[in-house]
Amino acid sequence: MKFAHETLAQRVVFAPEQAPRAVADEVARLGATRVMVVTAVSSAGLTARLTDGLPVVHVHDEVVRHVPVDVAERAREAARACAADALVCVGGGSATGLAKAIALTDGLPVVAVPTTYAGSEATPVWGLTRGNAKTTGTDARVLPRSVVYDASLLLTLPARLSVASGLNALAHCVDAMWGPRADPIDRALACEAVRVLSEGLPEVQDHPGRLPGHERMLYGAYLAAVAFASAGSGLHHKICHVLGGMFDLPHAQTHAVVLPHVLAFNAPGAPEAERAIAGALGSAGAVEGLAALYAGLGVPASLRDLGMPEEGIAASVDPLLAVVPDHNPTAVTRDALTALVRAAWEGDPHR
Amino acid sequence: MKFAHETLAQRVVFAPEQAPRAVADEVARLGATRVMVVTAVSSAGLTARLTDGLPVVHVHDEVVRHVPVDVAERAREAARACAADALVCVGGGSATGLAKAIALTDGLPVVAVPTTYAGSEATPVWGLTRGNAKTTGTDARVLPRSVVYDASLLLTLPARLSVASGLNALAHCVDAMWGPRADPIDRALACEAVRVLSEGLPEVQDHPGRLPGHERMLYGAYLAAVAFASAGSGLHHKICHVLGGMFDLPHAQTHAVVLPHVLAFNAPGAPEAERAIAGALGSAGAVEGLAALYAGLGVPASLRDLGMPEEGIAASVDPLLAVVPDHNPTAVTRDALTALVRAAWEGDPHR
Repeated sequence: MKFAHETLAQRVVFAPEQAPRAVADEVARLGATRVMVVTAVSSAGLTARLTDGLPVVHVHDEVVRHVPVDVAERAREAARACAADALVCVGGGSATGLAKAIALTDGLPVVAVPTTYAGSEATPVWGLTRGNAKTTGTDARVLPRSVVYDASLLLTLPARLSVASGLNALAHCVDAMWGPRADPIDRALACEAVRVLSEGLPEVQDHPGRLPGHERMLYGAYLAAVAFASAGSGLHHKICHVLGGMFDLPHAQTHAVVLPHVLAFNAPGAPEAERAIAGALGSAGAVEGLAALYAGLGVPASLRDLGMPEEGIAASVDPLLAVVPDHNPTAVTRDALTALVRAAWEGDPHR
Repeated sequence: MKFAHETLAQRVVFAPEQAPRAVADEVARLGATRVMVVTAVSSAGLTARLTDGLPVVHVHDEVVRHVPVDVAERAREAARACAADALVCVGGGSATGLAKAIALTDGLPVVAVPTTYAGSEATPVWGLTRGNAKTTGTDARVLPRSVVYDASLLLTLPARLSVASGLNALAHCVDAMWGPRADPIDRALACEAVRVLSEGLPEVQDHPGRLPGHERMLYGAYLAAVAFASAGSGLHHKICHVLGGMFDLPHAQTHAVVLPHVLAFNAPGAPEAERAIAGALGSAGAVEGLAALYAGLGVPASLRDLGMPEEGIAASVDPLLAVVPDHNPTAVTRDALTALVRAAWEGDPHR
C-alpha cells in the first residue's frame, strides 16, 4: 500500500429542483459582486432562469466544442472588460471548458451548473484547441470552486442520450480501477459510482422524465469524474481515443461498445478490482454484471455497427500499442490487442 | 438526494518504511526553506531520524495533551522567532494539534507524520484548552497540506493500544453514517474504512510487529477521520463524550464498549447504513458483523468493567438527552436512552 493521493478542494451541492437558490448561495459564499455567465445560446432560457437575481455583469454565449484558443481569448477579454470577479457556467463540457480556460489565465473562481453527465466540472483538467490540435493540462485553479447539481435540469434529455452519457461515466469508473495513478481511494470512489450508476441507468432508461434516476446518475457521474481524474486514463480510454480519432466514431457509443471487452481483458489480471466491480454491480462476476446491466439498455452491439471498417482492426494495432498505459493489469501484446479490438468490432452476438 | 459536501485540499502519501524521503519530498513541494519541527520529547529520536537533511531551524518539543493556550502561544512565538515557513509535526493528536494551533494564527503550512490512528491530521478541526475549558473550531487553514503515513512507525505500538485506537477509528466510521451532516460521500468513504479496518484489526492483534495490518489500519483511520469530520459527531460520540467526562472513563475503551450498543439502537432506523456496514464487514448483518469482529479482539465487555457506577446510568440521561444530534435515525426517548446506557453498562454476557 504505497501511493500518493491528491484531494482537491471543491464544494458540491446536490439541490434537486433548487438550482437557482443554490447558485445564488454559492455566488454569495464567494463574496462575488460582478458575475460573468458562460453558457451556450441554446441554453439561454434555462440560464436566465438560473441566474435571475444574481449580480450579472455580462452573459457570454460564444461556446464552441473543444474550446478553440481564439474563443477562449475573446472570453478572457470579455471577463476583463466587465471586471468580473466570478464565473457561473451553465451547460455541458463545452461551457465548463470555456469557464476553465478563463480561470486558467485570470484565476476567477467558477460556479458550475452541469446539464450533462460529462463530469468535466469535477476535474482540474483543461483543454484548448488550435485547428485540429488539442492541448490539455491539469491545474488546480481551473477546478470549479462549487458545483450545483440539479437533476431536474436533465429531465428533458432523451433517454438514449442519458444512457450513452451514463455509460461514458461508467467507463470512467472502470478505467479508474487500473489507470496509471489508480490508488485505493480512487477505486473506492469509483465503486460507489458503479453502484449508483448501475441503479440510475435502468431508471433513466425506463423513466427519463422522473427525478430519482437522474439524481443517482449525477451523483455517480460526479464521483466517476473525480476518480478518473485522479487515476488517469487507463487502457479503455486509450483504445476509445485512438479508434474514435482514426474512424470518426461517435464518442459515447464507442465507449459503450468497447467497455465490456476491456473489462473482460483486464479482469483476470486485476482480481481485487474485478471483485469490487462485481460487488458494486450486485453480481457474482464483473463481466456478467456489466452484461446484465447492458441487456436492458439498448447499447449498440459492435464497432462494426458504428461504422468502423474491418481493415481498421489491423490498422489500429500499432497506434494502440504506442499508447498502452503503464501498470495495465493484464500484459498487452500485439495478439491480445488485436483479439480485443476484433471482439469489439464483431460484437456480442447475444445483444 | 439533497446535500452539500465540502471536499478539502490535502495530499496524503502512504510510504511504508520510507517516511524520511517522503517528508523531504513534501517539504520540497511546499518550497519551504525554514522548517520548524513539532514533536514530543518522547519522540525526539524518531523525529531526528525522520527530519535528517531537512532545513530545520527549530525543534519545538513542548507538546501537551489538549493544547493549553499558553503552550500554543509559546509555540507561535517560537515559529515567529525562527521565521519558519513550514511546520513538520511528528506524533499523535497532541503534536498535530499544536501544529494546527500555530497554523490557525500564523497560516504556516503543515506536513504531518502521524504515529497513532487518531486521525486528527485528516481533519480541519482545532482545539485549545484554558484550564478545564476546551474550545474547538473548524478552519481549512489548520488542515495539514500533506500527510506522510509510514506504517513502520507504528510497529512498536503494543497490540492492545493499536486495537483500541483502531476501534476508535471504527467508531468514527459508524457514526459518520448518521452524523448531523452525513451525506452519501461520507458514507462511501466510511464504508471503505470499515472494510479495511475490519481486515487490519485482527492482523495487528495477531501480528503487531508486521507491516500489512498497520498499513490497512492507517489507511482506514485516515478515511474514517475524513468521513467523520465531514459528517459531524453522531449519537455514539455524544454518548462517549458525556459518559467519559462524567465518570472519567478511558477514551478508546469507552468507544469500544459503547459502539455495538449504538449500532444496535440505530440500525433498525437506518436500513441502508445497516446494509452498507454489513457489506463492509462481510457479514449478513451489521450488528452480527461487529460482534464477530469484536470476538477476536479482547475488547472490554462493559462500562461497569471500566469503572462507571450503576447510579451513573440514571444520572447521565438528562445530560445525554441535551446533546442528542439532529437527524439521528432512531428516535431517542428517555426510556430508549436509559436502556441503551444500561445495556452498555451491563455489557455483553457472551464476551
